[in-house]
Amino acid sequence: MKLYQSNASPNSRRVRIFLAEKGISMPLVPVDLGAKEQFSEAYTKINPRRVVPTLVLEDCTVIGEVPAIQRYLEEIYPEPPLFGATPKTRAQVAMWDRRVEMEGFASVMEAVRNAVPRLKSRAIAGPHDYEQIPALVERSRKRVENFYADFNARLADVPFIAGDEFSVADITGLVTVDFATKGADLPIGDEHPALKRWYGSVSARASMAA
Amino acid sequence: MKLYQSNASPNSRRVRIFLAEKGISMPLVPVDLGAKEQFSEAYTKINPRRVVPTLVLEDCTVIGEVPAIQRYLEEIYPEPPLFGATPKTRAQVAMWDRRVEMEGFASVMEAVRNAVPRLKSRAIAGPHDYEQIPALVERSRKRVENFYADFNARLADVPFIAGDEFSVADITGLVTVDFATKGADLPIGDEHPALKRWYGSVSARASMAA
Repeated sequence: MKLYQSNASPNSRRVRIFLAEKGISMPLVPVDLGAKEQFSEAYTKINPRRVVPTLVLEDCTVIGEVPAIQRYLEEIYPEPPLFGATPKTRAQVAMWDRRVEMEGFASVMEAVRNAVPRLKSRAIAGPHDYEQIPALVERSRKRVENFYADFNARLADVPFIAGDEFSVADITGLVTVDFATKGADLPIGDEHPALKRWYGSVSARASMAA
Repeated sequence: MKLYQSNASPNSRRVRIFLAEKGISMPLVPVDLGAKEQFSEAYTKINPRRVVPTLVLEDCTVIGEVPAIQRYLEEIYPEPPLFGATPKTRAQVAMWDRRVEMEGFASVMEAVRNAVPRLKSRAIAGPHDYEQIPALVERSRKRVENFYADFNARLADVPFIAGDEFSVADITGLVTVDFATKGADLPIGDEHPALKRWYGSVSARASMAA
């Protein structure tokens, strides 16, 4: 089993942190996004969608899409559970992880990809080119602010995003905040103390260096 | 257990078809989107995101987000498996279902929500208002066309979206095509024979009337 990934890719980091929380190590094969290696013939044979990360199993089965990779790893290495320990908590983790992804992570990605000059015709990752839409930058930044406000309210009630236990939703959340801070100059403001408390606690975990 | 849902909501239909494939029935509580009932005090207490569908368990646990609802139902009613029967097939189903959602379903939703006059300040579902961005309509329609071409190529190789077996990815795909056809006048063209063959076979299942 090996992971094709990039240290510059927030989606790759979601899987690296997941591996570190599980205490799993595996070969990490670097894909140089700066040199557009994801569009190379060799890599598109592995993942026709031309995105990282991709997990490749011993029998050459290819698993793309971060949540699919994470769920496969959860099945193979169940401890500690990062998708919840019972059907009900698994449903809560799935719900909250998705909300973080759709409202937070996807908004930051959209803000960055529609603004960065070198991504001019690459506003959406994947096999097809799409031109940037400038109006999306402002809207996406507003969505990140709304995400912060909504999750600040959520985290005033519970220690972790999905409830009482650390889960994959916190990994997605942490990567989202770091990506927003570094990629879009949108750090958590002082008006969101619960979100800041959560960020401080989660970012102190050893796995987050991954 | 009961499902708050709307017959006018493609996301609700994804869960109704899932229930029908499992042979499960449960009370369906209608939420009248035309009358903006999802914004009522009563409904926002159930689901603060103000979207349908929502699954509410006997103990009042609330599960929102379609894939979270579907995965919970899969755990409680494992037969027939709609998320795959082995770790490897489950990974393939998760990967393909997500691709259908992100590339197909989300594109149709974006095309519709940015175009329909009555959704003027509701370009994104959820608790926050966002104005429509006209440039998104054209781009989303292009994304739907690319989705059709990509999945026509996929379905030239395999009978179902995730491979040899019918799965939740086919439900998401079928709802996507019907939504594109009725909501955005984007039916599958004759240039996509494999996709048409798949659509004919999947739409003939009794569950699709749900």
